[in-house]
Amino acid sequence: MKKMSANWFWEFVTPHLIQQFSISDIIYNGMTKYQSVQVIDTPGFGKCLILDGKIQCSESDEFIYHEALVHPPMITHPGPETVFIAGGGEGATLREVLAHSSVKRVVMVDIDRQVVDLCRKYLPSLSQGAFEDGRVELLHVDALKYLEDTKENFDVVIIDLTEPLEEGPSYLLYTREFYQGLKDKLTPDGLIALQSGSTSMIIAFGFTAVANTLGTAFSIVAPYQTEIPSFGGTWGFAVASQNLDPRELLPEEVDRRISSRINKDLRFYDGITHRGIFSLPKYLREEMNRDKRIITRDQPLFTY
Amino acid sequence: MKKMSANWFWEFVTPHLIQQFSISDIIYNGMTKYQSVQVIDTPGFGKCLILDGKIQCSESDEFIYHEALVHPPMITHPGPETVFIAGGGEGATLREVLAHSSVKRVVMVDIDRQVVDLCRKYLPSLSQGAFEDGRVELLHVDALKYLEDTKENFDVVIIDLTEPLEEGPSYLLYTREFYQGLKDKLTPDGLIALQSGSTSMIIAFGFTAVANTLGTAFSIVAPYQTEIPSFGGTWGFAVASQNLDPRELLPEEVDRRISSRINKDLRFYDGITHRGIFSLPKYLREEMNRDKRIITRDQPLFTY
Amino acid sequence: MKKMSANWFWEFVTPHLIQQFSISDIIYNGMTKYQSVQVIDTPGFGKCLILDGKIQCSESDEFIYHEALVHPPMITHPGPETVFIAGGGEGATLREVLAHSSVKRVVMVDIDRQVVDLCRKYLPSLSQGAFEDGRVELLHVDALKYLEDTKENFDVVIIDLTEPLEEGPSYLLYTREFYQGLKDKLTPDGLIALQSGSTSMIIAFGFTAVANTLGTAFSIVAPYQTEIPSFGGTWGFAVASQNLDPRELLPEEVDRRISSRINKDLRFYDGITHRGIFSLPKYLREEMNRDKRIITRDQPLFTY
Amino acid sequence: MKKMSANWFWEFVTPHLIQQFSISDIIYNGMTKYQSVQVIDTPGFGKCLILDGKIQCSESDEFIYHEALVHPPMITHPGPETVFIAGGGEGATLREVLAHSSVKRVVMVDIDRQVVDLCRKYLPSLSQGAFEDGRVELLHVDALKYLEDTKENFDVVIIDLTEPLEEGPSYLLYTREFYQGLKDKLTPDGLIALQSGSTSMIIAFGFTAVANTLGTAFSIVAPYQTEIPSFGGTWGFAVASQNLDPRELLPEEVDRRISSRINKDLRFYDGITHRGIFSLPKYLREEMNRDKRIITRDQPLFTY
Repeated sequence: MKKMSANWFWEFVTPHLIQQFSISDIIYNGMTKYQSVQVIDTPGFGKCLILDGKIQCSESDEFIYHEALVHPPMITHPGPETVFIAGGGEGATLREVLAHSSVKRVVMVDIDRQVVDLCRKYLPSLSQGAFEDGRVELLHVDALKYLEDTKENFDVVIIDLTEPLEEGPSYLLYTREFYQGLKDKLTPDGLIALQSGSTSMIIAFGFTAVANTLGTAFSIVAPYQTEIPSFGGTWGFAVASQNLDPRELLPEEVDRRISSRINKDLRFYDGITHRGIFSLPKYLREEMNRDKRIITRDQPLFTY
Repeated sequence: MKKMSANWFWEFVTPHLIQQFSISDIIYNGMTKYQSVQVIDTPGFGKCLILDGKIQCSESDEFIYHEALVHPPMITHPGPETVFIAGGGEGATLREVLAHSSVKRVVMVDIDRQVVDLCRKYLPSLSQGAFEDGRVELLHVDALKYLEDTKENFDVVIIDLTEPLEEGPSYLLYTREFYQGLKDKLTPDGLIALQSGSTSMIIAFGFTAVANTLGTAFSIVAPYQTEIPSFGGTWGFAVASQNLDPRELLPEEVDRRISSRINKDLRFYDGITHRGIFSLPKYLREEMNRDKRIITRDQPLFTY
Repeated sequence: MKKMSANWFWEFVTPHLIQQFSISDIIYNGMTKYQSVQVIDTPGFGKCLILDGKIQCSESDEFIYHEALVHPPMITHPGPETVFIAGGGEGATLREVLAHSSVKRVVMVDIDRQVVDLCRKYLPSLSQGAFEDGRVELLHVDALKYLEDTKENFDVVIIDLTEPLEEGPSYLLYTREFYQGLKDKLTPDGLIALQSGSTSMIIAFGFTAVANTLGTAFSIVAPYQTEIPSFGGTWGFAVASQNLDPRELLPEEVDRRISSRINKDLRFYDGITHRGIFSLPKYLREEMNRDKRIITRDQPLFTY
Repeated sequence: MKKMSANWFWEFVTPHLIQQFSISDIIYNGMTKYQSVQVIDTPGFGKCLILDGKIQCSESDEFIYHEALVHPPMITHPGPETVFIAGGGEGATLREVLAHSSVKRVVMVDIDRQVVDLCRKYLPSLSQGAFEDGRVELLHVDALKYLEDTKENFDVVIIDLTEPLEEGPSYLLYTREFYQGLKDKLTPDGLIALQSGSTSMIIAFGFTAVANTLGTAFSIVAPYQTEIPSFGGTWGFAVASQNLDPRELLPEEVDRRISSRINKDLRFYDGITHRGIFSLPKYLREEMNRDKRIITRDQPLFTY
């Protein structure tokens, strides 16, 4: 007992489930204009970014989250040149996008400039210089408004936002209205990808509803999941498109595209991983068939 | 704050990670001759069995654990008739085994009679009458000793034990010596299956070492994993055999065998699930290549 | 680590301070018409009553709370015959009142009949048969309304209510308006006593404000405190009266009155205890001088 | 829920009771040669010093602990000139001793130089320059050995050590053998004072056993207690002497001595406080009568 850690970060995963990490340091603790921000150091997961009390990423396993979010749509596309990122202030999504040699232009819109600055200062391993890349245009405005106004089309759009909580406006980016507007911002072979919350069985409602809602705008929706230890279990994602289905790529083709297009070693994603993450367990597929919810502006979805 | 749950079960997943469930009732709280036993009721996971302070299964997701442990080896075998179960006192592993219509005889050895009785009384949904099945021989002796002494051979052996902790003797069933003795207890096409602990990245050492150690006795070792929410993340398993590799079964063949052999609806396991659980992410496969540890009686492995 | 208790009750003492007890059983867990009720068993404090998530009393130290609430006003009075109790559903305040041989009539008003019944069933050591005493009239109506309507006068009035939280109506019994009405319900030498919340330094605001507010109706106000372990620190009380000051009683006189009037052994209260509980530390007396707040219906006080 | 603090310090008060503070910063986190040291900042208690996982003092209420430890023996003595302090690395005990104008020489022995240095750096409000006072001799050696070897006698000896845990040698300073050696190091009117652990009812065993053990060496032993919020309840102390009994000082005499001898304002201690802290509640006095334990080197006492 005497050796037990004394200082702990805790997070409500659900009202009935708490996850606690021991912490060795509180590196930063403050408020931006939009949210509370903490950077903590932990023996189990390394440095972690906490926004509004919820863990966003840890040094030890952020590679899983960011490779899982970025590479399935990028590899499914035959040769993505233009990419839009909504959110992603840590810079790690940008880092993975820029590893694709076909990419010529990335527009990244994250409203909270201070989070971007804090991550560059305290968590530089996340962006690894990505913000200095000449292909990047970084804007601190409302991503929803930007997408409505822009005349530009993108090959891949990546929505890398915090969960839709009641307090914040991010819920608008999880609605049918948003997805239907978004499809006109894609090039013909364009894809979007997003995270859709925990798929630990008892709280997977976001995962299925988001997939349903994507289905009102896109003819192909491919949900997938992977374990992210610091998130306390498996996490859901989805790729959506009018033409391209990532589930049709064989492992060998995925590996071939990785080696010809990506200029660094990946740790999480390859052909077998690709096959695994799209092979959802039966209970999740059945839940997806049962659940008919569509998320709209009038009937939004909020997570815990 | 006022609505927050007041009563919580907590478990150290690692020395630096705690998982807490809210609890609505403590149904049983006592000691057997071998271990402490609790049956608690929880809003998040239903009733849970706790042995020596560690969760063994919850009503809400035990189907994942037990289907994942039983069906991969049983389906990979062309027609299993005799099965040996070490441990498995809850009766749910037995329940899944008996669902295979080819099974003619099951020997189940769990040293702790009281746990079996407590589970039948307080958690009857786990065994669902399996102990009354005429094909079952249930013994409360030392499984290790029983296997050493028996002259019988089995088509499938399932090791369903608690984690190897320093205090208990179960660590002996995770050693090279045990696996080498075990291979002579199998029929020519025989398989064994076991759980090998958490595969949440930061504590996966058991998973890789167990697979290595199986490799000293069996020519084919197929590790796999699946999310089990109440265990706090992904959990590892392995199937081992001299002749049969579950990774060679296509989803369609798995589904065909399920429908011809299993006389109930499965919730977790089918062909796509089978493909998914054996498609480990790249970082786990690489860790498996790096790790050379072999577990022996002289150099045993203990989990937290 | 392995021997650590697995099940815990926790309570927010303040937003920044949590107290956790290990629990061995949840004996009762339900809702009455007015509040949530739990009876839990704990290795440290025995059985505990929890209302709306806050501990009300524990078997191990309820004698401190109830002797501290009842005997200072009863012993200060020259010979109390009639007593009114607001709240006190556990029956332990009633038990202590009835130990005074001078008492002829007790009116106890607790609106929540179910709490009274649950305590008689699950915590019988609290009332010890007090509800069967022929001197007692027990009513389940609104205590505030009853006191407004009654024409009866009492020698001692004891307010034994939960803390004034925003949700409930008990805050009305902590206001100037209530105390000014109450003074007309007392006999000329009458006294009132009440609990006034934690006096652990950082959250003593209730203690001083309640004393101030009593001072608007009564010429003598004597605040006091004692440690109550299961409450997580020292707890405040006050006696108020127009004529009698408990601080003028010497220890010897307290002991003399106890032996001539109380027909059982006390565990907490005697002459030296009396002197100690009214001898507040300097910082509390100074805070009392500084604080000028008066609690009114328009400016009520809510505790955490 | 969303506003709940995310980072917490927790301490086992007993195996069945945990106290958690929310923390806003971890200012220092390291190991000295003798113990682990943390300086944390908390919204509830200000900055806190943690040694080996146990809170030693908080900025918000250290004045209670240090005034309670120092002034009762110093004021009971007719004019203390020489003082020995064992432990007390924070410098706050020294600060209170030096406030007595009669003091000419203080020998302070704390084996852990690093703790002294860390407190001067991170918690300067504790020592407030005391270490620079010309009357002070500060040594970093074993206090037990120093006292055995010294030929010097002292008017007041203050033992300001951490609790006696099994791991450390401080338990030797809580034994009959130590107290019997110590009495020869005092001047004829000399007194010693020490802290003796929690007096929250359920874990007061140290308090009574220490008082008993002091009684084998000193003819007068005066135990006392006071609430220390950050310690989670009331805390025990004792003054021992051959000639002088603090309980015989009337409040007025205490106040007279304070004003003539102490050159600063006290926040906790005065005449009424003095009377209150020595007026123990009946159950503690009765426990003291019941308990016959004597602590010896062969039968030491360890706290949790």
